Amino acid sequence: MPSETSRIEAFSDGVFAIAVTLLILEVKIPPITQASLASQLLQQWPSYFAFLLSFLFIGIMWINHHRLFTHIKRSDNGLLILNLLLLLGVTAVPFPTAVLAMHLRGPGARTAAALYNATYIVIAVFFNLLWRYAVSKKLLDQSSAESAHAISRQYALGPLVYVVCLGLVWVSISLSLALNAAVAVFFAVPARVAGSRSQR
Amino acid sequence: MPSETSRIEAFSDGVFAIAVTLLILEVKIPPITQASLASQLLQQWPSYFAFLLSFLFIGIMWINHHRLFTHIKRSDNGLLILNLLLLLGVTAVPFPTAVLAMHLRGPGARTAAALYNATYIVIAVFFNLLWRYAVSKKLLDQSSAESAHAISRQYALGPLVYVVCLGLVWVSISLSLALNAAVAVFFAVPARVAGSRSQR
Amino acid sequence: MPSETSRIEAFSDGVFAIAVTLLILEVKIPPITQASLASQLLQQWPSYFAFLLSFLFIGIMWINHHRLFTHIKRSDNGLLILNLLLLLGVTAVPFPTAVLAMHLRGPGARTAAALYNATYIVIAVFFNLLWRYAVSKKLLDQSSAESAHAISRQYALGPLVYVVCLGLVWVSISLSLALNAAVAVFFAVPARVAGSRSQR
Amino acid sequence: MPSETSRIEAFSDGVFAIAVTLLILEVKIPPITQASLASQLLQQWPSYFAFLLSFLFIGIMWINHHRLFTHIKRSDNGLLILNLLLLLGVTAVPFPTAVLAMHLRGPGARTAAALYNATYIVIAVFFNLLWRYAVSKKLLDQSSAESAHAISRQYALGPLVYVVCLGLVWVSISLSLALNAAVAVFFAVPARVAGSRSQR
Repeated sequence: MPSETSRIEAFSDGVFAIAVTLLILEVKIPPITQASLASQLLQQWPSYFAFLLSFLFIGIMWINHHRLFTHIKRSDNGLLILNLLLLLGVTAVPFPTAVLAMHLRGPGARTAAALYNATYIVIAVFFNLLWRYAVSKKLLDQSSAESAHAISRQYALGPLVYVVCLGLVWVSISLSLALNAAVAVFFAVPARVAGSRSQR
Repeated sequence: MPSETSRIEAFSDGVFAIAVTLLILEVKIPPITQASLASQLLQQWPSYFAFLLSFLFIGIMWINHHRLFTHIKRSDNGLLILNLLLLLGVTAVPFPTAVLAMHLRGPGARTAAALYNATYIVIAVFFNLLWRYAVSKKLLDQSSAESAHAISRQYALGPLVYVVCLGLVWVSISLSLALNAAVAVFFAVPARVAGSRSQR
Repeated sequence: MPSETSRIEAFSDGVFAIAVTLLILEVKIPPITQASLASQLLQQWPSYFAFLLSFLFIGIMWINHHRLFTHIKRSDNGLLILNLLLLLGVTAVPFPTAVLAMHLRGPGARTAAALYNATYIVIAVFFNLLWRYAVSKKLLDQSSAESAHAISRQYALGPLVYVVCLGLVWVSISLSLALNAAVAVFFAVPARVAGSRSQR
Repeated sequence: MPSETSRIEAFSDGVFAIAVTLLILEVKIPPITQASLASQLLQQWPSYFAFLLSFLFIGIMWINHHRLFTHIKRSDNGLLILNLLLLLGVTAVPFPTAVLAMHLRGPGARTAAALYNATYIVIAVFFNLLWRYAVSKKLLDQSSAESAHAISRQYALGPLVYVVCLGLVWVSISLSLALNAAVAVFFAVPARVAGSRSQR
């Protein structure tokens, strides 16, 4: 018998997979012009940068979603709706990504970077809501108590650091995006606790 | 052994996931112009509104589909075809959504809102057809009789309220869309009955 | 333990689901112009027609793929490759669909309809190759002998009728497309045989 | 109970399925012009060629991913991340494909073909990293030792031959792409070893 959460996972996998794959559609194909193709390709580095950063972010979100659902074993209507809110954030990512790629070298760079970081704050909040709901409603596997505590602590940091990223936009856009990437890497590593399944 | 309906669910999950993720492609990236990026981003609020409304709608349809298939345990050729009709409605949603986003502030607002509501009437009818077929052909889990009755009653309301939404378009477009959103929330909550699995 | 063909089915489900959902992207959003939105929407009926026809076709192909894999229980490298060829045909469908939608009322209507039917001939041939390979390599469930025979007979008709559809393009484009749609409906109904699982 | 790698496979299946299906979006629909539709369709043969080549490549990568995960039975955080890197390569494929299709007959043909081959080198390296990690961390099925050795040997060739393809671009673009296609076919056939499951 499939587990109670298997279809939530399947639907979420689909949304993550599509969102991450749609990102490439925002990288434009240079037309045939006087300029050499190589120089045109190099010139659109902000598109590659935004693609890579968002790929990293969505990919690591998927790893985290996967990790949470190794602990979440039961489902209810609230979980379905909170998971849907999280997916709303995920599906939106290609939009701020494309805005960032288009405006990173223009006068709208600050606005674009702020929108990008703001999206991540919202997603980090939704991740916390989903997880805390699952913990408080006791939807977790019984053996997950310790890991759950470690995850709760790690996740609480998420919205905070993304708020810092957002604030940094008015100091230095590059610094803000560099911190943003560093945070993604931080969440790729599982929360530190003995006996966590995802830590082997 | 996988259940008889598992591949129907997998295919449907895919279609729902893609339809919901494609919605973001209709939100246009503002080009670099004289106007500030921030004001350009704010100006296209109808795109965000249409995106959110359709995300909500498709997401809640997915929850309902999931809920129906916790009861539907057997499959036949008629169910495959009726499920396909429902998915036809789901895949179509990005089109009326984009039409609404484009025309909500133009002279075609009424037509766009009517098209939008008409799509939802059709989908609500397909949902009823699928469910009633499954009930009448006894494709349900044996323990589902009570829940089934509650779902049948709730679903019968769907086409009716969307017809009201459509009619309201000629009274007030805003009111029509507000009711439309309220209906989605109504269907996010499972039909009221004791012992339903999705009610915990 | 998942069955040996479960990942082939999952990947194929994904491809079918995406191909069928991408079709809607080819239906263009009318811009804001002098003309009324309603008349613009009506004018692009060939887009809706092509969308519906291709949705029907891909949907029914999925039903057939699902039906074949209720019989196919083992997998080998040849099956993987033939399944991939079939999916090549499926993923290509949005292109001839969009060509048909664009040119159905123009001077290129005959060419567009011929391309459309030619795609379906190729897919029908790939379906036959996949199925006959599975039969000849004894990859089927043991209880499937009778159904297998009925399917083989039904599928042999596929390429033939699509060749007729193609030929009809030079007689009457409408007739050709009408026959095309009728063939899809014919394949929605399972091959006639006693005891087939998909016949209930 | 689902296997430990089942959700990695589901997510990867989604990404492969989407990447392979998005390829068709890069094949442009000829507009209505003076020129006959047939001649316009024929003129864009580089688009079809690039579509077919990339479909072949992604499809065969999927077969290889499927083959690897018939051996990989356990998962850890490193495997998740290396799998993500591989998927990064897969999702990127539609971009060099579209660049190749656009520039194959223009002055940028060499650059486009070099970019195309370079993408494949990167993916081949990621495939090797994933596989070697799984071997070294003993994440394989116990019965897979012999097959594992054969796969390791076959995969080691991948980056090398794609480097040769890249070098050939400065000799003959056609030759380079022909070798590229031949390599794909080579990887469609499983590594030669007795007792491999995928060799039946």
